[in-house]
Amino acid sequence: MRINATDERNYLQTVFEKLGFQKDDGILIADTLVDADLRGISSHGIQRLDWYRRMIKDGTIIPQNKAKILKEIPGAVLVDANQNMGHLAANLAMDKVIEKAKQIGVGIGVVRNSNHFGIAGYYVRKALQPGLAGIALTNTRPLVVPTNATEAFLGSNAFAFGFPASPHPFIFDGATSVVAGGKIQLADKKGTALPGDWVVNKDRQVVKDPKEAENILATAAFEAEQKGGGLLTLGGSEANSNYKGMGNSIVVEILTGILAQGSISADTNTGKHDFSQFVFAFDPAFFGDLETLKANATAMLNRIRHLHHLPGHTIWVPGDREYKNLAENQKRGVEIDDKTIDQMQAIADELQISMPAEV
Amino acid sequence: MRINATDERNYLQTVFEKLGFQKDDGILIADTLVDADLRGISSHGIQRLDWYRRMIKDGTIIPQNKAKILKEIPGAVLVDANQNMGHLAANLAMDKVIEKAKQIGVGIGVVRNSNHFGIAGYYVRKALQPGLAGIALTNTRPLVVPTNATEAFLGSNAFAFGFPASPHPFIFDGATSVVAGGKIQLADKKGTALPGDWVVNKDRQVVKDPKEAENILATAAFEAEQKGGGLLTLGGSEANSNYKGMGNSIVVEILTGILAQGSISADTNTGKHDFSQFVFAFDPAFFGDLETLKANATAMLNRIRHLHHLPGHTIWVPGDREYKNLAENQKRGVEIDDKTIDQMQAIADELQISMPAEV
Repeated sequence: MRINATDERNYLQTVFEKLGFQKDDGILIADTLVDADLRGISSHGIQRLDWYRRMIKDGTIIPQNKAKILKEIPGAVLVDANQNMGHLAANLAMDKVIEKAKQIGVGIGVVRNSNHFGIAGYYVRKALQPGLAGIALTNTRPLVVPTNATEAFLGSNAFAFGFPASPHPFIFDGATSVVAGGKIQLADKKGTALPGDWVVNKDRQVVKDPKEAENILATAAFEAEQKGGGLLTLGGSEANSNYKGMGNSIVVEILTGILAQGSISADTNTGKHDFSQFVFAFDPAFFGDLETLKANATAMLNRIRHLHHLPGHTIWVPGDREYKNLAENQKRGVEIDDKTIDQMQAIADELQISMPAEV
Repeated sequence: MRINATDERNYLQTVFEKLGFQKDDGILIADTLVDADLRGISSHGIQRLDWYRRMIKDGTIIPQNKAKILKEIPGAVLVDANQNMGHLAANLAMDKVIEKAKQIGVGIGVVRNSNHFGIAGYYVRKALQPGLAGIALTNTRPLVVPTNATEAFLGSNAFAFGFPASPHPFIFDGATSVVAGGKIQLADKKGTALPGDWVVNKDRQVVKDPKEAENILATAAFEAEQKGGGLLTLGGSEANSNYKGMGNSIVVEILTGILAQGSISADTNTGKHDFSQFVFAFDPAFFGDLETLKANATAMLNRIRHLHHLPGHTIWVPGDREYKNLAENQKRGVEIDDKTIDQMQAIADELQISMPAEV
């Protein structure tokens, strides 16, 4: 069903307050989830709420804790998420990094002892507001099999990059794996076979059945006892250079788990389940007039959108779909699937709060 | 044939001096080419010499010019390559960025008005010497067709990242396209069909004949009059998320051509053929003890190398092959193909210098 984004926000803020988050922290996490749903990235929207609540119950997330700065120099900051949600610590780290980029042109930040941080693009868009450009990265549960391997080890490891452009910024935001897990769930819901080389089994045979694929990924992500297989890296098959996708994924592991001295993705299914994040911002205006750079980026993106192309197809520049969804969903409300509605209702009953109305 | 790396270096230094480069500049460019050949990245080694010489003759490269710093703040630097080789300007930019990273934790640099800069990994390894980590990017000629497009627009846009590890650093260095052009030339030399979804024609049909593929790419890269088709982005087909490869490639375009206010790759085949580069370094030791971080990275990479895998296959971590080649070629000399030897001989005759001996 569809609900109004404002109603979704109010519901979430109330839930987070009841779950023990400080008010400003609850407002921020609610904002990231509503933002994801508005942009049609529902895999990172309110459907995560039930999982977050379970992690609060089992002590993985401690909602009362405040993220804190451990160390800072002019160009870099190290933030401790203090075992609270990643959203809060990444937001703090990006705020500090934005200050640095304004002052000296660039800044980087690492977040340790963290949890899921929602959509990476959220933090990148923070940097864009004052005219900067930004990057945000996170490691994840182990889902991805390196080239030639038959067991999952790497995370799906998100990468987001943003740069000023019109009518909306360039935002590239996605998993470094060939697809995100959400795409497989979607195929399962639709009852269709997986169309690409997305998941392999323990013999590295491509899996086409979405249910079998989901089972492989759930075991890889959440069980200490592994049975092999997992998501492929970007590239898919060896012939299409999946070692490059592996390279991208390892870069994210290094900039997150290794720099933070936290868990690497491979170790997040065996007890120590902290995630780590990396944020980066820089000031394009150092290199040239910001409006000129923005106009040049816009002109390039428009040329890409209008290249000769396959009849009946559209060339979508990264970010275009999400801004189109945003405009639509701000008017029509956000679409929430039935399972998530049931989970929201159970939480509403438990916390004795009211559900958002259908629009 | 094989020649000794020292002989290759001496030959190149003499050639560059005779071609009008200042002595230190010639030494540096020679070092980058020998380094590429030693690592088995012969596509970026001495086989580029003939092309460089042609660009000097036609005025694209002005060997007497010195790269210069246009603008500098604590975290960022803008370098003008002054229409000389990209190697010289990228080296200067990385030197400045290394200083910044040592002082304030991080630095970024952009190079404008540049040319080909050899292997991106060379500049990254410079950052590793004093214990930093680094990134280097370049745009290129237009070779790559965006998702759903039927004409080339993006560059193959190299990305290199390095981080300290033992027994050698982690170095991921490659084109953001599904393969680099060199792999197609190699298939052509061997007379084998292209094994993956690498190149498409003007109807976006996958091309398997390497000669046809080479012809498509040569037209895309060097002719103003286009006939369509080009290299695919990483991912290959739409079903395997080639829009993610497109996203990576656009990120490189923005950080190079757009930030430098130079040409984007798409415009380098129509007169204005300047390339642009981006370099980045940061100090991992800010985030934790360097030896600990290095040991943790090493442990992760070793675990990847030893994952369960397909029988008879090896899991190569990015950089492993190149360091293996380096060790071998330092002993045995570097392998140079016949066509390149002929070109070297022609240059030796023209400049009245002697050829390196076969080992």
